Amino acid sequence: MSQTPRFPLPDLNSLPEDIRAKVLEVQEKAGFVPNVFLALARRPAEWRAFFAYHDALMLKEDSGLSKGEREMIVTTTSAANHCLYCVVAHGAILRIYEKKPLVADQVAVNYLKADIPPRQRAMLDFAMKVCLASHEIDDADFEALHAHGFSDEDAWDIAAITAFFGLSNRMASFSGMMPNPEFYLMGRVPKAK
Amino acid sequence: MSQTPRFPLPDLNSLPEDIRAKVLEVQEKAGFVPNVFLALARRPAEWRAFFAYHDALMLKEDSGLSKGEREMIVTTTSAANHCLYCVVAHGAILRIYEKKPLVADQVAVNYLKADIPPRQRAMLDFAMKVCLASHEIDDADFEALHAHGFSDEDAWDIAAITAFFGLSNRMASFSGMMPNPEFYLMGRVPKAK
Amino acid sequence: MSQTPRFPLPDLNSLPEDIRAKVLEVQEKAGFVPNVFLALARRPAEWRAFFAYHDALMLKEDSGLSKGEREMIVTTTSAANHCLYCVVAHGAILRIYEKKPLVADQVAVNYLKADIPPRQRAMLDFAMKVCLASHEIDDADFEALHAHGFSDEDAWDIAAITAFFGLSNRMASFSGMMPNPEFYLMGRVPKAK
Amino acid sequence: MSQTPRFPLPDLNSLPEDIRAKVLEVQEKAGFVPNVFLALARRPAEWRAFFAYHDALMLKEDSGLSKGEREMIVTTTSAANHCLYCVVAHGAILRIYEKKPLVADQVAVNYLKADIPPRQRAMLDFAMKVCLASHEIDDADFEALHAHGFSDEDAWDIAAITAFFGLSNRMASFSGMMPNPEFYLMGRVPKAK
Amino acid sequence: MSQTPRFPLPDLNSLPEDIRAKVLEVQEKAGFVPNVFLALARRPAEWRAFFAYHDALMLKEDSGLSKGEREMIVTTTSAANHCLYCVVAHGAILRIYEKKPLVADQVAVNYLKADIPPRQRAMLDFAMKVCLASHEIDDADFEALHAHGFSDEDAWDIAAITAFFGLSNRMASFSGMMPNPEFYLMGRVPKAK
Amino acid sequence: MSQTPRFPLPDLNSLPEDIRAKVLEVQEKAGFVPNVFLALARRPAEWRAFFAYHDALMLKEDSGLSKGEREMIVTTTSAANHCLYCVVAHGAILRIYEKKPLVADQVAVNYLKADIPPRQRAMLDFAMKVCLASHEIDDADFEALHAHGFSDEDAWDIAAITAFFGLSNRMASFSGMMPNPEFYLMGRVPKAK
Repeated sequence: MSQTPRFPLPDLNSLPEDIRAKVLEVQEKAGFVPNVFLALARRPAEWRAFFAYHDALMLKEDSGLSKGEREMIVTTTSAANHCLYCVVAHGAILRIYEKKPLVADQVAVNYLKADIPPRQRAMLDFAMKVCLASHEIDDADFEALHAHGFSDEDAWDIAAITAFFGLSNRMASFSGMMPNPEFYLMGRVPKAK
Repeated sequence: MSQTPRFPLPDLNSLPEDIRAKVLEVQEKAGFVPNVFLALARRPAEWRAFFAYHDALMLKEDSGLSKGEREMIVTTTSAANHCLYCVVAHGAILRIYEKKPLVADQVAVNYLKADIPPRQRAMLDFAMKVCLASHEIDDADFEALHAHGFSDEDAWDIAAITAFFGLSNRMASFSGMMPNPEFYLMGRVPKAK
Repeated sequence: MSQTPRFPLPDLNSLPEDIRAKVLEVQEKAGFVPNVFLALARRPAEWRAFFAYHDALMLKEDSGLSKGEREMIVTTTSAANHCLYCVVAHGAILRIYEKKPLVADQVAVNYLKADIPPRQRAMLDFAMKVCLASHEIDDADFEALHAHGFSDEDAWDIAAITAFFGLSNRMASFSGMMPNPEFYLMGRVPKAK
Repeated sequence: MSQTPRFPLPDLNSLPEDIRAKVLEVQEKAGFVPNVFLALARRPAEWRAFFAYHDALMLKEDSGLSKGEREMIVTTTSAANHCLYCVVAHGAILRIYEKKPLVADQVAVNYLKADIPPRQRAMLDFAMKVCLASHEIDDADFEALHAHGFSDEDAWDIAAITAFFGLSNRMASFSGMMPNPEFYLMGRVPKAK
Repeated sequence: MSQTPRFPLPDLNSLPEDIRAKVLEVQEKAGFVPNVFLALARRPAEWRAFFAYHDALMLKEDSGLSKGEREMIVTTTSAANHCLYCVVAHGAILRIYEKKPLVADQVAVNYLKADIPPRQRAMLDFAMKVCLASHEIDDADFEALHAHGFSDEDAWDIAAITAFFGLSNRMASFSGMMPNPEFYLMGRVPKAK
Repeated sequence: MSQTPRFPLPDLNSLPEDIRAKVLEVQEKAGFVPNVFLALARRPAEWRAFFAYHDALMLKEDSGLSKGEREMIVTTTSAANHCLYCVVAHGAILRIYEKKPLVADQVAVNYLKADIPPRQRAMLDFAMKVCLASHEIDDADFEALHAHGFSDEDAWDIAAITAFFGLSNRMASFSGMMPNPEFYLMGRVPKAK
């Protein structure tokens, strides 16, 4: 991959104030600025819509899916789309949220062999069908979710997360977005105290 | 397809004021409420992000792509994703914007045989690769666009529109969203005066 | 698509008398000459076999499939083969025969979401398997048809129509055959009286 | 495969006279009745159209393709369609016409490794694209044929043979047509005198 | 295919003694030296491992699979991999072991239509899934084997044979290995006495 | 994946002496016994052939490929085959040999975007074609390797490694082999001194 990307990251100080503030907040919390925050910022209106959508799906509290499960959907479907940025970045968050240092690599290579409970397997089956053949989704797919206690609202969450990160995967791959080196190791080793 | 959808359209009066206002505005302009406006409104935060993103891409003025060309990307890639709602709805808008009553059906079936100039063919080649194999996009794909006068910013527009409607396609197909009957005929016959 | 086709349409007066007579008959009935009648006429022996086959399947009276259902098979499988001519031309006839102005666009984009009864859905499932994976057809596929009242003779009709238009699709696409503009609008609006 | 086929072969004496005469003529020449002649005869109108089309393509004298080359197209594309009847039956005829006892097995498994001259390789490249992705055929495909001395009329022959046997493949596979045992050995060993 | 292969067969006398002895033994038994024995011999260490693996799977006595069934797996999966050498060479051995002169051509074109008992059909279903989608193998696949009397050890045999010849297929295709002419006719006609 | 595997790991002390010795040697060196050494040991003859083949390819000194490059081929093609064991285990060795802690995750998700020099990109292009479409390998593929200084012997190495691990991938996936937890972290952090 080219070392001089076609769409260079903008300078933090050139960004609109609301975006700059959010970037600084993320940097404060994570210790670094994930590249996606800068890469998309060259288009402020798109940036704002992207993160509003992201937050509506990934941060909301009243979901039948844990935050770790949502990241598991992202990691699994992003791997199906071969998106380097999202697999590495969201795999890191998945490891942290689920407190399972091995699970991200497992679902990225083959979620069918991952060490996860049947409920999460059903969740990923639905997500993968939305990712790869959404036009074939039918009642049987919803019933398979219901059998594991998921509601239709949970199905919407799974579908929307998959669909949103399908967008994200395409933007990251098309533009050559590379994951920050920090992500690769996050959640693999106990945090130093 | 079930006549009693899993995710019924909400009542207009139950919607938050900003959403209700936008829906009424669209109804005023189009003469009917396109189903996507109601179907997504059951989740206000997602609705707002969705339409903010949509408007950032589809309504912006400073693009190398005409509005008709943007709708052509939507129609073509939505057909590749077999999304009934988006092909029918955006095919209608494409016919109107391009003032070409035949082009939507052509790109939906096989854009390679559509009666479009080489520039638009190159635009759709790029869009289809973002749609179907974004992880394989490389410098040669950008160069093919440049040969027709597209800039890297135009490439971003093509990719972002494709990626955004990939999200839209998956939400519409998964949830069984049906196009309003009005769309099927729009732009096919001269407007009555 | 090239405006100067590789295989130009022959002049009507240069055709053998039997072919010329049939073309004039069609023109009389339809008000125009569908391009397929001229495009194939450059090879009279193939023309005669093609239309004999067509008529044996599409015009015969003693079939368990209505003529509209036969056109529905053509439209659906031609879309799977991305054949512009057949989707547009037979979509028009489908609209007229079924008296359903929306159904052709629906089955062309995604027959799984089309507003059709379960019987027609089963018919199209069988047709699509013949179209895409005929070597995998087995007893279970026939039983699925029987469950909706189709006989083995009906299965033959479905398969033969699909197979014949698979031929037609390939000839039309390979030779750059374009649908007549008249087809796009047929059956969408009530006939003027 | 079921030993009691769903569509049993009709009795020779029950057939219309013209069909019966043709079947007897073939039997006289070949020493046995190839199953396709009986299997399709249960539908006389389709039978007549099928063999008229077949003869128009496979028996005509003024083609740039030898009869062996035409059988090579049939064998290669029928293998791509996994049609047992056509690969075995036409592989036999190919061996006889080309006087090459090994070539049929080669093109059936992998025509790219078959021991054939570049001209025939180009012919099969075109045929395979018509077979598998006819909607993507473009000028470059014709130019690749021209480079080996094929005309546009020859291209039509290649496409029509491929398209016609695509029909034949689907009918044979769907209906469980089995090749006569005689075909398997034909053309492999010198004829006894 | 090039007549002057990229990796020419080594001279028998240049080979290490153990390999030369084995080659001569095979020649004594078969009447000719199958090309794979020479083609791989240019790398003695790989040759020894290859044939040790081959013999461990194909010659062992305590298997639930007959030697003919093992060759049937090889022929079927090698056809799926389009490996000319293995389909022709192992198809010959299959005909001889099973004493069925037609079966090899049948499984190579479409094993779903081959004239084999349900047990062998189940065996090939498992083999084809290992060949084409091993990551999706799950308990249901083993249960389908058990229903026909196969044990988990038999499943291992099926999988290992498929996996080993997947290796062999790739080496043969990549290096342009051609089957010896002798193989094409073996097992088709009764042995002269 | 089941926690009680269908093919349980054999007890070390039940193994033949030569296998036991090799396992102990590996344990001594690595600090643990990689599961593949025990999982395959239930079949001693296959075990011996497997590791003989492995060592002939992966340990030999006179190759144009570094040992790290060989592991890069394994990691990349194993990801294409969705083999959890091989991606995790060989990804670990790749990180260590190449002294690049990020490269394994990159090639596993999308080698086209990995931060590797053009020579290694060409090596992986060839490997992926052997992995996914070996029957289509032709002279142009070899020439693409030559352009980066690879010889035909190097091409053989790339193909043989890909083919051998295609075997390994299928055995690991079919039998439910799980990577040892130790592999996930190896080569990501500097070794403690």
